Amino acid sequence: MHEFELIKNYFQKLSIKSPSALNLNDDVFFDKKNRLVVSVDTYIEGNHFIDFKKPELVIKKIIRSSISDLICKGVKPKYYFISGSGNKQSFSKSNLSKISKALNQEQNKYKIFLSGGDTVFSNKLSFTITSIGFANSIVYRNKAKINDDIYISGNLGDSYLGLLVLKNKLKLNQRLKKYFINQYYLPNIQLKLTDKIKKFANTSIDISDGLLADLDKMINNQKLSYKLFLKDIPISNNLRKVIDLKKLSKINYVSNGDDYQILFTASKNKMRIIKKIAFNSGVKLTKIGSIQSYGQKSSIIDDKNVQITLKNKGYFHKF
Amino acid sequence: MHEFELIKNYFQKLSIKSPSALNLNDDVFFDKKNRLVVSVDTYIEGNHFIDFKKPELVIKKIIRSSISDLICKGVKPKYYFISGSGNKQSFSKSNLSKISKALNQEQNKYKIFLSGGDTVFSNKLSFTITSIGFANSIVYRNKAKINDDIYISGNLGDSYLGLLVLKNKLKLNQRLKKYFINQYYLPNIQLKLTDKIKKFANTSIDISDGLLADLDKMINNQKLSYKLFLKDIPISNNLRKVIDLKKLSKINYVSNGDDYQILFTASKNKMRIIKKIAFNSGVKLTKIGSIQSYGQKSSIIDDKNVQITLKNKGYFHKF
Repeated sequence: MHEFELIKNYFQKLSIKSPSALNLNDDVFFDKKNRLVVSVDTYIEGNHFIDFKKPELVIKKIIRSSISDLICKGVKPKYYFISGSGNKQSFSKSNLSKISKALNQEQNKYKIFLSGGDTVFSNKLSFTITSIGFANSIVYRNKAKINDDIYISGNLGDSYLGLLVLKNKLKLNQRLKKYFINQYYLPNIQLKLTDKIKKFANTSIDISDGLLADLDKMINNQKLSYKLFLKDIPISNNLRKVIDLKKLSKINYVSNGDDYQILFTASKNKMRIIKKIAFNSGVKLTKIGSIQSYGQKSSIIDDKNVQITLKNKGYFHKF
Repeated sequence: MHEFELIKNYFQKLSIKSPSALNLNDDVFFDKKNRLVVSVDTYIEGNHFIDFKKPELVIKKIIRSSISDLICKGVKPKYYFISGSGNKQSFSKSNLSKISKALNQEQNKYKIFLSGGDTVFSNKLSFTITSIGFANSIVYRNKAKINDDIYISGNLGDSYLGLLVLKNKLKLNQRLKKYFINQYYLPNIQLKLTDKIKKFANTSIDISDGLLADLDKMINNQKLSYKLFLKDIPISNNLRKVIDLKKLSKINYVSNGDDYQILFTASKNKMRIIKKIAFNSGVKLTKIGSIQSYGQKSSIIDDKNVQITLKNKGYFHKF
């Protein structure tokens, strides 16, 4: 059963008395009266991260993944709580020291504070991160409008390539190897956009499961469709090189998630302000398609103006 | 390594810039400016609950354990987030339906709302519960005063006896068996005291690890000691019967935790108001000892006025 169905069938009705829970159908919980925004996510070894050989990198990745949920909604993360379950080896003194140092670096980078948590013994390593911020308003899901432009921040696909390298499924030279692994562990989340995104976005989500899966999630309650142009989906020069060299299919590499870039839609008349904010903040913002009426089928158009057929739209947590 | 040392050595320094984290040395996080109170706890099968044969009971137990952290601080819980990791069997349709029903019952009983969470696949079953409330002030740890009376709400020990029954370590008749198992799974947490406790308590904690372990935690930064009278520690009639019948040692049964009763200290002149509130709310509040200066050694006095020597003060999460 997909996570979405599971939530819908069994838990949505429990949140119905609390409008702040947004029907459990958004990235965050938002209590407008108390200005409270909360995100809770669990990360498991072998599922959300490969192993714990580099604790400092794993910790940075999951912290960024967690606060990314707030940032994409236009909310500055302030506090985080970390609950770790693991064995003696995972939480050895050496590893704890690395975790502590990594957390300290992330705290300084993103101006967040460790505020509590729990540590319990388990033979299976996992972390649950609760991130909290405060805001008067957020950018919701399911608020796209027909003819909105669809934008993405930064580049997509580097993280997935890093994962393939880590799994030894792709051979690359040392320099590229290092670059992609780094992109996998240290996604370049866009804190700078936090205060700006409410100025132009109608709806938003961060890319964790994959461009297409998250695009579907972003408008899952709306009778809308989308049209994307593959050539417009931004990738790094390094990814461009690898795709050309190994004759890979671009769509597979940009729709596998773990990018933690911000996907949003905006009215056409916002294009100027978006360009200006992108320029001033130094954050790449790229138009990759547009929102259409429900009557038209969602589609991705390739370089030869041909529609791409997809089997799998991204990564779902399966039960 | 004990959880306390672990937190102290590696994580306390990370919270130093955020006074709301209370140096990670309290049951909750409290951001006074935003009136926000948060508790995060992880519960693992085989550690915090025996098994998942009765999902509805496990879920109720961990929800109560989590909101108990807020209630003992005088904070009404409002929202909870549940992150579950488990396999197909644990999250079968039948179990999900039982979990959902149990959550609904707890929501109605305690006026709390499911506000989000996460579900991930893992061969090890665990839950992380984040509970959130709002308050202008809380009852802190480490605020006991010399000569304070020490009080406990409800009864102690029933839960531990229930655990022994579940582990087949104690043979009892069906009626008692059912009673103690019920007490283990469904601790009678004292929501009614939430609004009252600030009126009389100088410091407080809930009993999760055990009376003595939690008493030590409650005053762990203070140069104080305590004196407890074993005969005054309240137990149920059923526990009294079993202790008499099986010639058990009372101190072992009241100091093993999982009680989720409120331990607090209060100035002597609060005795009248405490009695009045106990009477009006129908919550049993029992004086079990007093706080002393650091010069005197902490002690527990048994029925024959002899000091009890203890090897182990309670349950620690060990790494």
